[in-house]
Amino acid sequence: MPVNIPTLTAEQLLPVSGVTLGIAEAGIKKPGRKDVLVMLLAEDTQTAGVFTQNRFCAAPVVVAKQHLSLSAIRALVVNTGNANAGTGEAGMQHAQATCAELAKLLNCSAQQVLPFSTGVIMEPLPVDKIIAALPTAIADCKPDNWFTAAHAIMTTDIVPKAVSKQIQLAGKTVIISGIAKGSGMIRPNMATMLGFIATDAAIEKTVLQQMARFVADHSFNRITVDGDTSTNDSLIIAATGKAGNATITTTASAEFMQLQQAVTDVAAELAKMIVRDGEGATKFITIHIENGGSQEECNKVAYAIAHSPLIKTAFFASDPNLGRILAAIGYAGIQDLDVAKIQLYLDDVLVAEQGGRAAHYREEDGQRVMKQAEITIRVVLNRGNATTTVWTCDFSYDYVKINASYRS
Amino acid sequence: MPVNIPTLTAEQLLPVSGVTLGIAEAGIKKPGRKDVLVMLLAEDTQTAGVFTQNRFCAAPVVVAKQHLSLSAIRALVVNTGNANAGTGEAGMQHAQATCAELAKLLNCSAQQVLPFSTGVIMEPLPVDKIIAALPTAIADCKPDNWFTAAHAIMTTDIVPKAVSKQIQLAGKTVIISGIAKGSGMIRPNMATMLGFIATDAAIEKTVLQQMARFVADHSFNRITVDGDTSTNDSLIIAATGKAGNATITTTASAEFMQLQQAVTDVAAELAKMIVRDGEGATKFITIHIENGGSQEECNKVAYAIAHSPLIKTAFFASDPNLGRILAAIGYAGIQDLDVAKIQLYLDDVLVAEQGGRAAHYREEDGQRVMKQAEITIRVVLNRGNATTTVWTCDFSYDYVKINASYRS
Repeated sequence: MPVNIPTLTAEQLLPVSGVTLGIAEAGIKKPGRKDVLVMLLAEDTQTAGVFTQNRFCAAPVVVAKQHLSLSAIRALVVNTGNANAGTGEAGMQHAQATCAELAKLLNCSAQQVLPFSTGVIMEPLPVDKIIAALPTAIADCKPDNWFTAAHAIMTTDIVPKAVSKQIQLAGKTVIISGIAKGSGMIRPNMATMLGFIATDAAIEKTVLQQMARFVADHSFNRITVDGDTSTNDSLIIAATGKAGNATITTTASAEFMQLQQAVTDVAAELAKMIVRDGEGATKFITIHIENGGSQEECNKVAYAIAHSPLIKTAFFASDPNLGRILAAIGYAGIQDLDVAKIQLYLDDVLVAEQGGRAAHYREEDGQRVMKQAEITIRVVLNRGNATTTVWTCDFSYDYVKINASYRS
Repeated sequence: MPVNIPTLTAEQLLPVSGVTLGIAEAGIKKPGRKDVLVMLLAEDTQTAGVFTQNRFCAAPVVVAKQHLSLSAIRALVVNTGNANAGTGEAGMQHAQATCAELAKLLNCSAQQVLPFSTGVIMEPLPVDKIIAALPTAIADCKPDNWFTAAHAIMTTDIVPKAVSKQIQLAGKTVIISGIAKGSGMIRPNMATMLGFIATDAAIEKTVLQQMARFVADHSFNRITVDGDTSTNDSLIIAATGKAGNATITTTASAEFMQLQQAVTDVAAELAKMIVRDGEGATKFITIHIENGGSQEECNKVAYAIAHSPLIKTAFFASDPNLGRILAAIGYAGIQDLDVAKIQLYLDDVLVAEQGGRAAHYREEDGQRVMKQAEITIRVVLNRGNATTTVWTCDFSYDYVKINASYRS
């Protein structure tokens, strides 16, 4: 079951002026499931995106990157049940056909449409089913449909993921709403599974693109469930400009920083929801690495811990077998690491220092923290000033169960 | 259950002239368990070793490396139930005390003893129990005790791991016998969990050390169970010189190459046994990467596949959800990888080419191979001439079960 995600209600989600959303049931993998989402954007909306670094990236990722660089985007179309990845030339044609068909219905150009897919890899996309469902999705489009949209992009997700936030920006009220999906194959590299965030703030496209990179690096790029970087990761941020604020034209302005922080907050909350709903997750684990020699070495240590099956299963069992964390720090790849300088904390409990177990550490203190649903691992390297934070979950029977039966 | 390991019998293991082995029950973790092994080496035995690269390496690893560089080794002492890793200065003293005590009983110097430990990390070594058990272990020493010795070094291993081989070397009969242990926390990096190989061949120490590196790189360094590199990995090769062959003094000789191949065969068989008995393993998987641009990139692809929880659980389920393999190839970290050039095979079945599913691939062919207990994944990168092979296993409920309860 998801770890501490409050039940989402439709009322918590704020419409973003200039954005409407509609869904349909195309029967892509099985009938009777919401599996197509269309998101329409008002004229003059600025759109930015970051995408997976996986070399086997999906056809829709290739097409979306291209369209984003060429045109003002007017619509997003998302399907679940099939990733359209590892599908070669036919997959490219299917992604393009989806865009062309939606464009025809909306009276815009195909390049103004961004396609997204998520689901099983290396199976042909049933593009005819998607195209047939588009009129229904368009007819369903309305501003207050974020709640339904969050449901329509779920795959192995147990709960929908959506967040809204309202800020005051230079005297104007600005809304930010976002949805995301993802539960397994989660170790975003420069992007996320699927995340769509919209705001009515006014901001130039090049500035928004720089913001998107920062937002990804401080939210979705800081989570991992199983270390598997997806072929389809995409984060899109659309800004409709309807809030009436003076258009943000530079990253140097106070308004940029304020908006960037608010969008990052929304993205980080969505990203953490993905971990809380990670496949089979029973614990939410925050890993802080402090006083590292560089960001890179902090990341190495954080991900060595976050990806260790031994550590993840120990957390599942609430067993303070914490020597496994020392082992992961030791093999993280820092060649000149002096283990005698390291401190390891579990929440506020000092577990290890001077190369071994801390003198005052008591098993019952470790046990107490391990039983919690939310745990922070803190590693102080004492080599410099760099820090990093990664969010992950434990590894349970249900992870194996879910992934041993996902296609069936 | 272990995958295709024939039942070992004492008769299959050949004594090595100059080597005796004895065991004891020290009650380190629980009573009534064989948990101490002593291996005595004749005078003039040459010994070489390779050890874990983990920066949190265990105290016995530090001591063993030091002793190996200083002295002619006369004895090895191994305990299970406690890794003596992450134990700081006290751990060093315990490892040294164990050596000193055994040396006193054997009338040699402490530097002529190599200590080894395996078990739980970051718990104090009950050194008094080990020392108290040494006389019993010494009294038990005999040449035909390899079978019992293989049992005495087991932890979560289900079956003991031992191999003997006999070759003719320049007209003399040479014996090679080896034992190993390991089941979880297995991703040896320049060494293995614990592997001890002895031969009666005559060979100089510096030449033997070069051989040890080659042997490790072509056996234990090619396996992974869970990607967790242990703090205690050690591979020791001892050559007693009792076979009567002319001492091998150079790596350029035919005898060196012949002996190296034979020792590598023994080591590779032991290494594969560790995978076959990997924690929770139900499948033995060989990963061949071919026509890579470099050894390094072949390794990146092989280990991305070998460590993916999604791929490992799909193998457990016999589900040919093979797009997950494409995803792992794509995120392995080769920035300029052209996925259109790659071929993916499962045994003899061509699964993917030209960036997607192969035209003639049929689900039932993939299904047939996935149901086997032994499966080869072959990835042809078509970028150069480098190749690599990695052996691994699947990921089952039992891996979670074993590691969620290992300490209790």
